Amino acid sequence: MTNVSRRGMLGFAGGGAALGAAGFAGGWGASHAAADEKPSPGERTYDFFGEHQAGIVTPAQDRLYFATFDVTATTRDELESLLRAWSLAAERMMRGETASDEATAYDAPPADTGEAEDLPPSGLTITFGFGPTLFRDEKGKDRFGLADKQPKELRELPHFPADKLDPRRSGGDIAVQACADDPQVAVHAIRNLSRIAFGLAAIRWAQLGFGRTSSTSTSQATPRNLFGFKDGTANIKAESRDVVDDHVWVGRGDDPKADWMTGGSYLVARRITMHLETWDRSSLREQEAIIGRDRPEGAPLSGGKEFDEPKFDVKGRGGEPLIAKNSHVFLAHPKNNGGAQMLRRGYNFTDGNDALGRLDAGLFFLAYVRRPSRQYIPMQMRMSREDALMEYLKHTGSGLFAVPPGVPKGGFVGQQLFTS
Amino acid sequence: MTNVSRRGMLGFAGGGAALGAAGFAGGWGASHAAADEKPSPGERTYDFFGEHQAGIVTPAQDRLYFATFDVTATTRDELESLLRAWSLAAERMMRGETASDEATAYDAPPADTGEAEDLPPSGLTITFGFGPTLFRDEKGKDRFGLADKQPKELRELPHFPADKLDPRRSGGDIAVQACADDPQVAVHAIRNLSRIAFGLAAIRWAQLGFGRTSSTSTSQATPRNLFGFKDGTANIKAESRDVVDDHVWVGRGDDPKADWMTGGSYLVARRITMHLETWDRSSLREQEAIIGRDRPEGAPLSGGKEFDEPKFDVKGRGGEPLIAKNSHVFLAHPKNNGGAQMLRRGYNFTDGNDALGRLDAGLFFLAYVRRPSRQYIPMQMRMSREDALMEYLKHTGSGLFAVPPGVPKGGFVGQQLFTS
Repeated sequence: MTNVSRRGMLGFAGGGAALGAAGFAGGWGASHAAADEKPSPGERTYDFFGEHQAGIVTPAQDRLYFATFDVTATTRDELESLLRAWSLAAERMMRGETASDEATAYDAPPADTGEAEDLPPSGLTITFGFGPTLFRDEKGKDRFGLADKQPKELRELPHFPADKLDPRRSGGDIAVQACADDPQVAVHAIRNLSRIAFGLAAIRWAQLGFGRTSSTSTSQATPRNLFGFKDGTANIKAESRDVVDDHVWVGRGDDPKADWMTGGSYLVARRITMHLETWDRSSLREQEAIIGRDRPEGAPLSGGKEFDEPKFDVKGRGGEPLIAKNSHVFLAHPKNNGGAQMLRRGYNFTDGNDALGRLDAGLFFLAYVRRPSRQYIPMQMRMSREDALMEYLKHTGSGLFAVPPGVPKGGFVGQQLFTS
Repeated sequence: MTNVSRRGMLGFAGGGAALGAAGFAGGWGASHAAADEKPSPGERTYDFFGEHQAGIVTPAQDRLYFATFDVTATTRDELESLLRAWSLAAERMMRGETASDEATAYDAPPADTGEAEDLPPSGLTITFGFGPTLFRDEKGKDRFGLADKQPKELRELPHFPADKLDPRRSGGDIAVQACADDPQVAVHAIRNLSRIAFGLAAIRWAQLGFGRTSSTSTSQATPRNLFGFKDGTANIKAESRDVVDDHVWVGRGDDPKADWMTGGSYLVARRITMHLETWDRSSLREQEAIIGRDRPEGAPLSGGKEFDEPKFDVKGRGGEPLIAKNSHVFLAHPKNNGGAQMLRRGYNFTDGNDALGRLDAGLFFLAYVRRPSRQYIPMQMRMSREDALMEYLKHTGSGLFAVPPGVPKGGFVGQQLFTS
């Protein structure tokens, strides 16, 4: 798309507003294009409408703002109207426009908060997911008459050994993942959705992610996590359509009672605090042994290059396998997980430091899977028991969300749940 | 510079390391350049050495990681050795290299934490400043025999009305501002400096900034803060050399007892929480009246365009000035502050949300001035009493730092303090 200035969309009448106009509705202001603005990167846009929601197989953008909301609406109609309003706004913002097409009256609050007005679309995607608590509250009560459609895969995740979950960073009725190449665009999106939700839903927790830790496309280089290692080498790539169909998208018949999820996916979100100071004091040898790959190239310790398959039967001096059985690569590999794969979409984060001066930082793990019960839970259960890396990790936040399929043109996110 | 891969610098011997080499020092590995990596923006570098420290008049980069450190070293020699080690690392990282030129032994911790290995220099600048507590501790004790050189301008800032400072986000013996166009590069810099400081200094607090809120060069468009308004229109620009000399750099003779500060500056850091939800519910009319500029263009309410001078004597209907006397523009304007100007270099931030679902977000204010006692303190004292904007702001963190002049080739930051 061309670089449409968001401010034109807002209906501002320009500088004249300053001279006392009492209320107005402006046009699409080509005249408002600022001459001094350099063309910037980030003109890429993704469609809100489609078979699947954007932000899943979309090539992972550089930045994340993730939030979960507690729904305070009490009726199904209110919930549906929230999702309709959110869909309208999300579709607009993904096109690089303001959150609302309403003209701003001078004596009313602006319809958009404005901090992204001069910024390009920046590849923004907004992805919605429903938590188990949207269907049934803590006491098991059917909140919106949707309980009989709760997917069987959408249960609270079990407690994993070494979990130290902070309830203020866990759960939520609805999750919203905003990814963009400019963090201000992602923050703007969540903020405006939060504003639209006023009286119907409120942010429960939020997480800023500053660097992507996975590639979701073969066109992307593998990024590094805060342990300094390439992360997600073996990630599912969007170009592998058969793999995506098998491992990411919910298939028709997967869950007859929740057929509305066909074409959707499940999002596992885990805030993983990394003990960087401890890691940084361990030797390169130990680090590589724990990961099962070398640090410079990300090549498996059994030899070859980054994208060569690890060979778990290759032994070194002393007869020990070059890739240890408690290494991350060994335990995460599909071969050792009944063929299970995930589409990972995580981000590095840092949230300041603790009282001892240690960085509060780590990896905000996001993974999309067709069946959490087979693709995430068993692997995480095993890893949290056996993975040598766990010594350096602490899971501090958690959520599981049913991500409905894409939105038909003109529709709203989750409509299949309401109409099926 | 060309895209030198940081990994070459680390002295890795490549994939061979995986096959059991017990220790090695590799060369500068052109062979390690990954063929699948696209050329990325961010090749820009700035010099660590020079008359002034980089990161002040440098065109403001997009992202910030800021940290202050408590020095635990107890002797002047230790403090000096910390600054020497930091300078070596900062100079390297600003060139896009790893933090250390030491070859990594396989049985030792890597000399660099690695998460920036495949990333370009990204315009990184690292800027150091000294807090009042570096000279005298809380009881007034001369910590390092430097107390007689403490600049008279380097005092704890006074308490301003409406301050709600969090001691865990205030003060610090040494401040380090890392700015870059990639947040991972900025975080990597602070993390590696923190690591180098082990046993001599520890992070006291840190702040991630995601979007710059000021331009420091006429080549940059004015960005918007989280109130949706352009911020820093009247900021000092690097191109105005006379203004920079008058208002930013400490001049010879400014403070005879602290002549080591000649060519340096003072950094005021303020974490300003913005009550976004309240702001978002106020009318456009009210918002513009509070700021004194219109939102679409950032033009003064007295008319004209963004960069036109505000005319405080222009009156509207009813005889009231178009720019109110309690507006931000009025109170911040040099005309109304005895000609005082600042070089602002702030960033937007968000640190999640509070228990009520409100975003914990705002502006991390950074300003460089020649004389805080004239250029910041009186203005902030007046603003915090009179500025209509204060209703929407809360100052939650604070620090004042003496930023020493630039580093002569081969020297270390702050050396003028030690040798003068």
